[in-house]
Amino acid sequence: MTLLLGPNRYGKAETRLVRVVRDGDVHHLKDINVSSSLSGEMESVHLTGDNAAVLPTDTQKNTVYAFARRHGVDQIEDFALLLARHYVDSQPTIHHARVEIEEYAWERIPATGHSFVRTGQEVRTCVVHYDRDGSVSVVSGLKDLVVLNSTGSEFHGYIVDGYTTLKPTTDRILATAVTARWRHSVTDVDFGKSYAEVRKLLLEAFADTHSLSLQQTLYAMGRRALEARPEVCEIRFAMPNKHHFLVDLEPFGLDNDNEVFYAADRPYGLIEGTVLREDAPDAGQAWE
Amino acid sequence: MTLLLGPNRYGKAETRLVRVVRDGDVHHLKDINVSSSLSGEMESVHLTGDNAAVLPTDTQKNTVYAFARRHGVDQIEDFALLLARHYVDSQPTIHHARVEIEEYAWERIPATGHSFVRTGQEVRTCVVHYDRDGSVSVVSGLKDLVVLNSTGSEFHGYIVDGYTTLKPTTDRILATAVTARWRHSVTDVDFGKSYAEVRKLLLEAFADTHSLSLQQTLYAMGRRALEARPEVCEIRFAMPNKHHFLVDLEPFGLDNDNEVFYAADRPYGLIEGTVLREDAPDAGQAWE
Amino acid sequence: MTLLLGPNRYGKAETRLVRVVRDGDVHHLKDINVSSSLSGEMESVHLTGDNAAVLPTDTQKNTVYAFARRHGVDQIEDFALLLARHYVDSQPTIHHARVEIEEYAWERIPATGHSFVRTGQEVRTCVVHYDRDGSVSVVSGLKDLVVLNSTGSEFHGYIVDGYTTLKPTTDRILATAVTARWRHSVTDVDFGKSYAEVRKLLLEAFADTHSLSLQQTLYAMGRRALEARPEVCEIRFAMPNKHHFLVDLEPFGLDNDNEVFYAADRPYGLIEGTVLREDAPDAGQAWE
Amino acid sequence: MTLLLGPNRYGKAETRLVRVVRDGDVHHLKDINVSSSLSGEMESVHLTGDNAAVLPTDTQKNTVYAFARRHGVDQIEDFALLLARHYVDSQPTIHHARVEIEEYAWERIPATGHSFVRTGQEVRTCVVHYDRDGSVSVVSGLKDLVVLNSTGSEFHGYIVDGYTTLKPTTDRILATAVTARWRHSVTDVDFGKSYAEVRKLLLEAFADTHSLSLQQTLYAMGRRALEARPEVCEIRFAMPNKHHFLVDLEPFGLDNDNEVFYAADRPYGLIEGTVLREDAPDAGQAWE
Repeated sequence: MTLLLGPNRYGKAETRLVRVVRDGDVHHLKDINVSSSLSGEMESVHLTGDNAAVLPTDTQKNTVYAFARRHGVDQIEDFALLLARHYVDSQPTIHHARVEIEEYAWERIPATGHSFVRTGQEVRTCVVHYDRDGSVSVVSGLKDLVVLNSTGSEFHGYIVDGYTTLKPTTDRILATAVTARWRHSVTDVDFGKSYAEVRKLLLEAFADTHSLSLQQTLYAMGRRALEARPEVCEIRFAMPNKHHFLVDLEPFGLDNDNEVFYAADRPYGLIEGTVLREDAPDAGQAWE
Repeated sequence: MTLLLGPNRYGKAETRLVRVVRDGDVHHLKDINVSSSLSGEMESVHLTGDNAAVLPTDTQKNTVYAFARRHGVDQIEDFALLLARHYVDSQPTIHHARVEIEEYAWERIPATGHSFVRTGQEVRTCVVHYDRDGSVSVVSGLKDLVVLNSTGSEFHGYIVDGYTTLKPTTDRILATAVTARWRHSVTDVDFGKSYAEVRKLLLEAFADTHSLSLQQTLYAMGRRALEARPEVCEIRFAMPNKHHFLVDLEPFGLDNDNEVFYAADRPYGLIEGTVLREDAPDAGQAWE
Repeated sequence: MTLLLGPNRYGKAETRLVRVVRDGDVHHLKDINVSSSLSGEMESVHLTGDNAAVLPTDTQKNTVYAFARRHGVDQIEDFALLLARHYVDSQPTIHHARVEIEEYAWERIPATGHSFVRTGQEVRTCVVHYDRDGSVSVVSGLKDLVVLNSTGSEFHGYIVDGYTTLKPTTDRILATAVTARWRHSVTDVDFGKSYAEVRKLLLEAFADTHSLSLQQTLYAMGRRALEARPEVCEIRFAMPNKHHFLVDLEPFGLDNDNEVFYAADRPYGLIEGTVLREDAPDAGQAWE
Repeated sequence: MTLLLGPNRYGKAETRLVRVVRDGDVHHLKDINVSSSLSGEMESVHLTGDNAAVLPTDTQKNTVYAFARRHGVDQIEDFALLLARHYVDSQPTIHHARVEIEEYAWERIPATGHSFVRTGQEVRTCVVHYDRDGSVSVVSGLKDLVVLNSTGSEFHGYIVDGYTTLKPTTDRILATAVTARWRHSVTDVDFGKSYAEVRKLLLEAFADTHSLSLQQTLYAMGRRALEARPEVCEIRFAMPNKHHFLVDLEPFGLDNDNEVFYAADRPYGLIEGTVLREDAPDAGQAWE
């Protein structure tokens, strides 16, 4: 019997970094979480424990902090590209780098120039791949963007089988926590502006789409972003259907005309889908 | 040997309720989590399993939903008072009710009148007690309000013993996740306005207090709220010191003048304190 | 208006410590999480930021690690007492110490003397108070002990009001995650043996009590422990009623005679209660 | 610009089911969490909201409960296969089903035949794919299996660059939380026995491998399983390096010869790798 080493990678996950820039009395804050994964000539370390090809994960952590000092941290996509290129370009044994960054947003407390309060809404994300063969990909995204329409959502006309008890409805709450990731066709993007615009388009499309199914809403959100943002060639969503069940108040002599809902935890629907341009370039490892 | 039944209570925890009010095309949303605990003549149920004095927790859940339909949900403190009074006043065996409510905030997505996005910042809280003897208390609060000053914080002059390695500093990041609860001296309060004002005062005091210790900041926040809000007689805080450690970049030939920080998870400092008026009425069970 | 500083304490929370003892090739492992809180002459630090009375939380962390090396860690209650006494006895400004420890259990992997696998069952806990006036208390406990009886549980005979929809039952699943804390009347206890015995008694009483209500089961568990363990004078429980709802399979032509259940998350019942000896000494701050 | 619908699927996630089998006074318990995802002719639902091809997620939930009653739940892999086949074989519009199940383990409390306590160790997992074209795959696994070697682990000989500060070591703690998933080359497997054996082999290989790197340990674990279990053709791991840092006690006049460690949370190393047979059949969608 012959065994092989299959797909593998290793790295340092969740290096938490806060970067302060002082512009006189006005400070700027960047709060990020960096995870890097490297792969390459890793046969020996797996088979014999020979670490000669291994850049330790501790060094990856140090590199994140040192690069933050030396180069600053502006857009997370650019910082991720910088790190990914460094690992591959500086180490012959490292053939591929994947860098993932999450960014947590803060707002100013107006009383001073150095006081901030976390905005707990969505987390901004990115995943960058850079390979020795020159291929590079940038996927931007967000997660935990919780949205709700209190009307404008229907669900009917579905398959009925022997296990169906659901009643069709022409008016329900539609709520979800959007995870969206969008792939850029190029890397020289104004990522800050692009992020703000895509986020805005997703929110608007969620809000103003009269929904016959969560899939329809998902597709409409993707289409809205792709139609308006030429730098984006593909967008993927994972959207849980956060069920809000109308409470039966009839036993208490009360009607309930879409007023009082029970917000359920589990189980939940989970809708995953992709919208892409017909001429989108090959994704390669972008989604891994 | 004689055994006694000591302090006890029972109830339904975390009844999740979303209440929609339709004002034409403009909807209003209330998203809350209600926990009620009752106590009273509970000897028999503990000693023999006789449930004759027990209002089931399932009924408490139903009551929450029915009351939301019948009375609406405006300020959480008022809704908690309504529920607490109902349980004690309607059931002779129930002598005391404690109702706790959390409220999650949503902002409008401007595209429609029925679309919302969760604001992930702090959670608003309240705890109400109502007793058969007529005593009543209302504690309002918030939790998970994460704030940070990137300067304006020092720490020195502390005890040095044989286990001290910490270096004094005149400039550090001060960050915390504020849990604050404030007790009202009366119950006929405009709780919505009071909440907004106290929250604002806490943020401002956190921001503009030049801090020599987190305790000093805590006390300043409490004083600011009490001095401006006559309806509040006592305020309690739990504030973790979310450490941000300056990364040593000297091994890489880099200085680090309060620019790059490692945001640590554990361990963390934990500062708990109370500020109250000298003439505050007796708290009774308010803080339980 | 005069303001006062009310109840306060500060300390280092969640110092994670793993202690290895090498007995030749056989190693012993202790995996704990230590939180200490100190109080005393803390007016100045709150009012003016003068830290002269403050033993920094960083020093508390160091003390935990140094004491683990110097004294070892056997029973968590003894280690907590050692730390609490040290803080109060060595620092005139510290009048009271509270030390809380969690312990995570590991089992051996038999292949070697130095290999272990985490047992994920309950977490062992303790809270110790030590005051300058000589008063001392030890509360041992456990949390996250998840237990279930698939029969032997009834619920009926409860109050019926206008919000009742629950049907009485003579056979249901009873499941809970036990949090129990028990107070010792003395401090010179073989805490390891005491813990093992109390845990065993709680499990047995949960199992063999035919239950008419979760309160009855709770009381039976407390009684069982107090009757058998003279060192324990009081025990407190928090036991969520983890509801398992019988699924209605009639729409699919199937009966369901207590076979298929939906395990719900929220809301849940929450039963809290205390059993104590009539002659238990005064609890003082033990439960804080 | 032409847009396309890319990869998509939808389903019901986290249907929590407890199944009781009564064998006289001895009960048997199965506690699982089922997530199903379906795909097929889903153009219309995304583009126009026409649900004619959609089997609602609510129906998927019902099917899980009904099948548990009708067919029982023995090995999770077999139950997942049953569900997956049902969806594809009964609905022409559904071309592919993915069913994922988690199983939580319980031990008996000996006092009765119907009392159980959760064993909190690892969670057993499986993912099954079944396609209209007849292809089928079964991946079994476990997660959250936390293991630790207190010696027998070295790390040295790695790349040193300008960002290296880590010191080589010949004796360190090696700890990880194993997530392992293994692919079966056939579907008629005694999955219960196979699971128990693979789990045992993984634990043994973790324990008795003298480790020069976590990658080496990972590969040894995979090899051990593949060499002993012919039904398994590929195994994948994700193993965080849960760092335990030796505490510097020198400032307190104490040595620390691998006795006292700080168990860190973040960042952590993350090692992902695959071991497979040279002649393993094509994986198809098995790992998705």
